[in-house]
Amino acid sequence: MNTTEVLVEVHRGPILECTHRGSVAVWRHGEGLIGGIGDTEARILPRSSSKMIQALPLVESGAADAFGLTPEHLALSCASHQGAAIHTDRVTAWLDTLGLSEPDFRCGVQWPNDVPARDALICAHCGPDQRHNNCSGKHTGFLTYGKHTGAGPEYIDPAHPLQAAISEAWDDVTDEPNPDFAIDGCSAPNFATRLSGLARAMAAYAAATPEGGTRQAAMVRLREAMMLHPDLVAGEGKACTRLMRAMGQRAAIKTGAEGVFIAIIPDLKIGVALKIADGATRGAEAAIAHLLGRLGVLDPMHPEARAFAHGPIRNWNGIETGHYRIADALSGLSL
Amino acid sequence: MNTTEVLVEVHRGPILECTHRGSVAVWRHGEGLIGGIGDTEARILPRSSSKMIQALPLVESGAADAFGLTPEHLALSCASHQGAAIHTDRVTAWLDTLGLSEPDFRCGVQWPNDVPARDALICAHCGPDQRHNNCSGKHTGFLTYGKHTGAGPEYIDPAHPLQAAISEAWDDVTDEPNPDFAIDGCSAPNFATRLSGLARAMAAYAAATPEGGTRQAAMVRLREAMMLHPDLVAGEGKACTRLMRAMGQRAAIKTGAEGVFIAIIPDLKIGVALKIADGATRGAEAAIAHLLGRLGVLDPMHPEARAFAHGPIRNWNGIETGHYRIADALSGLSL
Repeated sequence: MNTTEVLVEVHRGPILECTHRGSVAVWRHGEGLIGGIGDTEARILPRSSSKMIQALPLVESGAADAFGLTPEHLALSCASHQGAAIHTDRVTAWLDTLGLSEPDFRCGVQWPNDVPARDALICAHCGPDQRHNNCSGKHTGFLTYGKHTGAGPEYIDPAHPLQAAISEAWDDVTDEPNPDFAIDGCSAPNFATRLSGLARAMAAYAAATPEGGTRQAAMVRLREAMMLHPDLVAGEGKACTRLMRAMGQRAAIKTGAEGVFIAIIPDLKIGVALKIADGATRGAEAAIAHLLGRLGVLDPMHPEARAFAHGPIRNWNGIETGHYRIADALSGLSL
Repeated sequence: MNTTEVLVEVHRGPILECTHRGSVAVWRHGEGLIGGIGDTEARILPRSSSKMIQALPLVESGAADAFGLTPEHLALSCASHQGAAIHTDRVTAWLDTLGLSEPDFRCGVQWPNDVPARDALICAHCGPDQRHNNCSGKHTGFLTYGKHTGAGPEYIDPAHPLQAAISEAWDDVTDEPNPDFAIDGCSAPNFATRLSGLARAMAAYAAATPEGGTRQAAMVRLREAMMLHPDLVAGEGKACTRLMRAMGQRAAIKTGAEGVFIAIIPDLKIGVALKIADGATRGAEAAIAHLLGRLGVLDPMHPEARAFAHGPIRNWNGIETGHYRIADALSGLSL
């Protein structure tokens, strides 16, 4: 990661307090890489930014249709949700339709980040369960695939047919044969890809048409589901939800742990992938907000765009103490 | 910050997932800089790592003695605490002795990071108040100075006599005349310093003796108070508390927001200051744990040293998914 560049600066008063280095890849379907910063060929773990790839077997196998899944379900299958009632209620009902229940999950227990949901559990002297895990929608999709195909219950095993199907799709969309993998926060394998390969995959989602065959049709359904339900993909207060709402279905975007962000922009047939080298969420959010503005799908003066790309940063008294600045390497990117 | 170096790596499975760049300064009192990585002359905001400097006027003015402050009070004046009962109960009692109360604070309201304290407030349908602010001990020290000297109540005003006294002390210990400042999370001015100047200041604390005059005597009292009460300087689970406990009063250490850490090592007359360029706490914690081991005051195989410098990183199921690695620039630092 030695060739990363500074993408985002954090200023406090007269001092440049922090910098976030990283890499950016912008890919136009049919053309290739049309813009890059840093090391676009570095192998990264896209983490949750790749959930729409991990959801391809769910749709392509016919499992989604067999269980009557709606765009809400598909949005949840691509989500890193907050564990709010709007998420866990839907996950519970979906599990019911499969004849399964919470212990069938393999994602682990996580406290919800949604404050009302968290506070209700605390006041009831209850803990969370696996439905509150931010990946429980993805895992319900995994279980749906297993139920439909008759594959076994240990769906996070790298040798499970589901993971083999994801790996096959991965190779196709990212051009990464036999990808390496690591274990994600939710215990599922997370496949590695060059950053440019992730952007290539997102451009394929952007350019996909319903008539383009099974894979493209699945891509369209997943992309549209994300844009239709920004609140199910993340939750109140989160960048994915706020920025997708601000864009009015002009792009599907998704964050991933450790500073990853992707964008799918259908009108332009463009996919974007970026990685902040240090893993900072605030750096990835500032960079994607800027890039969406540069690509014309987000008004740079929209309050949400300003909030993520500029700030201000405020302290416990609400006093403005600093701001973000898009660094020259990113603001000067030619597209 | 272009000359920072990678100090800490974050690995997940076969992938180098993140890197944390930064700078390190190690200063021996009477000798000067004996080790450095990156840009030791960059001006940084030390944030809460400088609380023992901000507490000098409290002790030197005679205010601490006039109000009978104990090492517990002095540890709190240097603390970024969790808002646990052990912290807020002492702050409340200390305010009482001053004839003051919570509205006299200017630090702002912050939810406590201590889980039992937070949960008790949630279940009582109460919010936090300014006593829960992680800086409330520092601010009680500020109020004590004001009460003793008769300075006005707006103690965070950069023109207030307290802030002038801090600036004077700052100049002396960091060798930074008329330092720039920014506004901190708690609304107090936070003065800037070269990283080497911060290490120089910490070496002065390390070398100070009770017989060395007013300033040195104050430094000794603050340093000893921090080492005596690791639980008051931060709280359960926090790096300052856990690593100071592991070292058994061989060093006083303090974190600061945005990736700063300092160490005061009396036996060696050494001060350490480090800054992670991206502001990551995990990077600063790994780097200081390694450096304390290198300097012989923390057993590198102590479970707390291992936890911060190596990990493992575990996921929601408790599965080991990765680890930290001290990068070559840091492990190869000659001291």
